Amino acid sequence: MAPQSKLDQVISLAKRRGFVFQAGEIYGGSRSAWDYGPLGTELKENIKREWWQTFVRGREDMVGLDSSIILPKAVWEASGHVATFTDPLVECTSCHKRHRQDHLIEAFVAKKNREPQDGMSEIACPDCGTKGQWTEPQLFSGLVKTFLGPVDNEAGLHYMRPETAQGIFVNFNNVLTVSRKKPPFGIGQIGKAFRNEITPGNFIFRTREFEQMEIEFFTAPEEADHWFRDWVEACWNWFIDLGIRPENMRRFEVPEDERAHYSAGTIDFEYKFGFQGSEWGELMGVANRTDYDLSSHTKASGTDLSFFNQATGERFTPYVIEPSFGLTRSMMAFLVDAYVEDEAPNAKGGVDKRTVLRLDPRLAPVKAAVLPLSRNEELSPKAKELANRLRKHWNIEFDDAGAIGRRYRRQDEIGTPFCITVDFDTLEDNAVTIRERDSMSQERVSLDKVESYLAARLVGA
Amino acid sequence: MAPQSKLDQVISLAKRRGFVFQAGEIYGGSRSAWDYGPLGTELKENIKREWWQTFVRGREDMVGLDSSIILPKAVWEASGHVATFTDPLVECTSCHKRHRQDHLIEAFVAKKNREPQDGMSEIACPDCGTKGQWTEPQLFSGLVKTFLGPVDNEAGLHYMRPETAQGIFVNFNNVLTVSRKKPPFGIGQIGKAFRNEITPGNFIFRTREFEQMEIEFFTAPEEADHWFRDWVEACWNWFIDLGIRPENMRRFEVPEDERAHYSAGTIDFEYKFGFQGSEWGELMGVANRTDYDLSSHTKASGTDLSFFNQATGERFTPYVIEPSFGLTRSMMAFLVDAYVEDEAPNAKGGVDKRTVLRLDPRLAPVKAAVLPLSRNEELSPKAKELANRLRKHWNIEFDDAGAIGRRYRRQDEIGTPFCITVDFDTLEDNAVTIRERDSMSQERVSLDKVESYLAARLVGA
Repeated sequence: MAPQSKLDQVISLAKRRGFVFQAGEIYGGSRSAWDYGPLGTELKENIKREWWQTFVRGREDMVGLDSSIILPKAVWEASGHVATFTDPLVECTSCHKRHRQDHLIEAFVAKKNREPQDGMSEIACPDCGTKGQWTEPQLFSGLVKTFLGPVDNEAGLHYMRPETAQGIFVNFNNVLTVSRKKPPFGIGQIGKAFRNEITPGNFIFRTREFEQMEIEFFTAPEEADHWFRDWVEACWNWFIDLGIRPENMRRFEVPEDERAHYSAGTIDFEYKFGFQGSEWGELMGVANRTDYDLSSHTKASGTDLSFFNQATGERFTPYVIEPSFGLTRSMMAFLVDAYVEDEAPNAKGGVDKRTVLRLDPRLAPVKAAVLPLSRNEELSPKAKELANRLRKHWNIEFDDAGAIGRRYRRQDEIGTPFCITVDFDTLEDNAVTIRERDSMSQERVSLDKVESYLAARLVGA
Repeated sequence: MAPQSKLDQVISLAKRRGFVFQAGEIYGGSRSAWDYGPLGTELKENIKREWWQTFVRGREDMVGLDSSIILPKAVWEASGHVATFTDPLVECTSCHKRHRQDHLIEAFVAKKNREPQDGMSEIACPDCGTKGQWTEPQLFSGLVKTFLGPVDNEAGLHYMRPETAQGIFVNFNNVLTVSRKKPPFGIGQIGKAFRNEITPGNFIFRTREFEQMEIEFFTAPEEADHWFRDWVEACWNWFIDLGIRPENMRRFEVPEDERAHYSAGTIDFEYKFGFQGSEWGELMGVANRTDYDLSSHTKASGTDLSFFNQATGERFTPYVIEPSFGLTRSMMAFLVDAYVEDEAPNAKGGVDKRTVLRLDPRLAPVKAAVLPLSRNEELSPKAKELANRLRKHWNIEFDDAGAIGRRYRRQDEIGTPFCITVDFDTLEDNAVTIRERDSMSQERVSLDKVESYLAARLVGA
């Protein structure tokens, strides 16, 4: 068997330890979505909280919003999504399965290292293997639709948002009024979005149901370039500050013909996920959406979404700089970047291999594990009592099963920054041993000082 | 004009101050959902965080999960939703609008204070006014469906979850394995759910898109009654601890013929929202779902979802106690309960009426407002600097517009616990005046002590 790639190892760890499960697994599984287990849910929450604190609560020029997933058709007609959010599909005339033409060509290029000749004639169907038997491409909408109300008809047609952004644009006037902000200012939102991807894949990287963290930053048109650069820097720094190594992330200036219909300029951040074929994958993008969205909605709704600056007497339709983060992609990048294999001393005086997630403590799903040295009438209650005290502040695990070294390994591989051992000395000195994940250094800490010890080392976590 | 009810006043405040906006308002609005503005988003986040801390992170017998919204049809067939999650609809033969028969009858009873005679013959159509011209009732599914994949056919048919619970049941084995818990233990989840309500209404009370906070607690069958009572108490105490007055909440034991298809016993909590007609509305419910769900999924999927207790050698299918909270309903209850009108001293030595949201500081969307006494070259930078420092820890507002009394009123009516005034003395004594919302008492606090002053009074906030 070929050695697993680092990405495969991370995926295997994520499944084994319950960061991520396949949705509907007991019914054969769905390719559309993934479920997040206890650790994945905590990690995802921690990423969201860090993002919200950095970009919304922590900035005086930002406010938050939480708009609905389902919006009437009119919104998506005005936004241009009904007309342009489409992909070319080709159908295999042998097995009648449909595929995205661009993905088939990409896969061919990745495999053969050259462009196909004569259009699709060299390309085989991934389902049945038949070569070159394709229909002409037809446009297929990436929007996920549904019907609301008592009758399945046009009046009830709604779309599930393919991006959270439109919920921000249609509320622009509302937020302006209640927040009493004026450009330059922005609105941040975290939430689910849905796209009818034809070929979901690469674990949680491309799914039909996913989560975004988006900012729409409204500025005077002449200041748009300045804010664009400013937001690219701010986003870059957020990832680096939370532990992504700069060599694993790069900027990609998206050429005009590959940009979304609303964009006058986009810089994508790509992360070195290590996919087969192409190692790099899109993590997030910063786009200059100009006044495209506010103007389109003004025209379609009849509500004026321009801004009147009382100080200068000027009226303008703000330009929008949009930093758009994939939440689940960010989670995947943090996991891949944190995954390390090194060595730890074992009980026999030698060393064992260990897997460790060097997650920033702010992101770590479990902040500390309380481990009684052995299952014992005196140690266990003392350890449980400590765990319950710490649970008032942090997500804590209690583990009394197996050798202490094995329990350290279990915590290391899920990235727990601190392991707290309650041993027989504890009964005498009312102190515990606290071991730090990365250095594996140990310190003896008095039981009544454990909270303050952790608080000083888990700032913001 | 008739005086507004308290509920109307709360709704008016929520709209005016941007807690809640109508979804798609600039396109005439959608009855299906509401959008949450800056303050509503923070309030909703705070409720979620309190819930998660109390019921998931804070308990050793609970873990979290975040499963997908869209699940394949098979899940909803097994759960019984496809067959039984239906309502009887009648159609007006004059205008052809459809209505829920039970809602029409309820409205009649509320208005006339008696049951209608002769079936539907006395009941007028709310749309066109025609009396008694109704078709026979037909069953209508409350499930929201969509199609995923390249073709709109049965293979792509998915349902959006009408409850988050099923995502927990289908992951029961996965969570059991990775968390190494055993019954009694529970899984908590917060997330969106969708129901095709025919008559959405009462503000954010009944919507098609809504948010739930659900716990599925797995126990041995013989311990189910004990845990049922335990959870009813725990849920009751959660609301009371966060400020709901006991006289505004009541328990309602749901009679057998009104219970959901899976329930062997349900206690609803009702809150005195003050709706027209019926004052009380359902806030949450605790149900004994027995082994209905795990058994149904075992049968339908072929995956055994029973539990083998190694200590006793027994195998059993756990019973499930389900505390299910409406997040947006909880938010509405917290707002209604916190809404008070009292009096505050004014600058002329008299008193003015004031509106105040006496929200628990843990729930308050803004924790403190920094108010320079006047817009001034020296005061404003000092106040901004303080606000930016405090933003590292809490959601903070900065407001320098208008008379100080008016700014206090603005903060009072959104429930901000502390107002911090930077005045001309500040330039001399490096101290600020901190005013508490409910007592309106003021204290002079040194600038370098503001964080610790607030931290001591915003514990857990």
